[in-house]
Amino acid sequence: MSANRLSSAKRIPARAKLIDAAHLLVRRQGYCATSVDEICAAAGVTKGAFFHHFASKEALGAAAAEQWTARAEELIFTLPPWVRIEDPLERLLAHIDFRLFMIDGAPEDFTCFVGTMVQESFASSEVLRSASDASISAYCERLAVDIEAAIALYGIRDGVSAISLAYHVQAVLQGAFIIAKARNALKEARESVLHLKRYIKMLFNRVDTQ
Amino acid sequence: MSANRLSSAKRIPARAKLIDAAHLLVRRQGYCATSVDEICAAAGVTKGAFFHHFASKEALGAAAAEQWTARAEELIFTLPPWVRIEDPLERLLAHIDFRLFMIDGAPEDFTCFVGTMVQESFASSEVLRSASDASISAYCERLAVDIEAAIALYGIRDGVSAISLAYHVQAVLQGAFIIAKARNALKEARESVLHLKRYIKMLFNRVDTQ
Repeated sequence: MSANRLSSAKRIPARAKLIDAAHLLVRRQGYCATSVDEICAAAGVTKGAFFHHFASKEALGAAAAEQWTARAEELIFTLPPWVRIEDPLERLLAHIDFRLFMIDGAPEDFTCFVGTMVQESFASSEVLRSASDASISAYCERLAVDIEAAIALYGIRDGVSAISLAYHVQAVLQGAFIIAKARNALKEARESVLHLKRYIKMLFNRVDTQ
Repeated sequence: MSANRLSSAKRIPARAKLIDAAHLLVRRQGYCATSVDEICAAAGVTKGAFFHHFASKEALGAAAAEQWTARAEELIFTLPPWVRIEDPLERLLAHIDFRLFMIDGAPEDFTCFVGTMVQESFASSEVLRSASDASISAYCERLAVDIEAAIALYGIRDGVSAISLAYHVQAVLQGAFIIAKARNALKEARESVLHLKRYIKMLFNRVDTQ
């Protein structure tokens, strides 16, 4: 398995390897603590190759945020079998179940690259802030499509808007990641996602999802 | 006003000034990006004085987390007039309203010192992780006392536990802070806290709070 990874890794372009390494290291130790040297070492790429692809660590951070969006589109909105559930509310609840299922193992493996990066860089780098915003907002706008369809079918309490609920889903996930990191345990983080699921069920108030 | 602050600042001990500077700088730019030199400059304290009080930046981070807990106990759980509201559910909802009210101005002024610090240091410093955990958990345990009293008085849906709901409150707030930082706007963050308030009201399901 690790031999397979090594041999297949040779076929991955340097740019993609550098972005993968940025995702890995920033999720584990944050953006500032991650140096270009470390990223190059983790990617198995020379510093010359790094600067061939990226003008700076900041430029890599922005590209890695863009790739994070593409990764979420694939892993969360395209590949899982439940994305083909026809009922939009069932699909939304399956989405929440999937996010709950992902909270497992070490925090660096399930937490959010852009949420971690923007936490420390929002005031110091407009490039990283806006790249992080674009990624988080793309997720929310994508999720809001399903929420909107569920609202059209079942109605929703208090005139809650789809996009507002989608940002709330993101907020709960980002916050649950911080709680998991602080606690060095998953119980409270996972329960927070269950609170979110209960809230969504109550908002839609459909008898058979209670 | 700024002259008053300068003259009164002279009476603040160096240790407290260093902790204040750590809160200010880490909330603005993160833990890693904040150097001991910068903290000393912001505090108006020499590096010699820094190392008289703290063995390292990490030791200051841990002390600043402890002070963050004391600050929350005073500013959130002791001083506001609404903490003396007799009904525990009304008090809990006033707590949420207060947290909503605090989300105003620049993110570095309303976001969480320990949530920011633990985001990047959870895997690299057990000292900072456990100090952040202690601060977040102290908040949750304190809030759970009010939630427990509200449950005793009104009951709660699905047997939700007070401490679990308290961690969910923390998760929503921590996540809302990240959304505010990414968006460079407060709308979605504030709406997330309103979703939390609606959830709490629905959990307790008391007619006059609907």
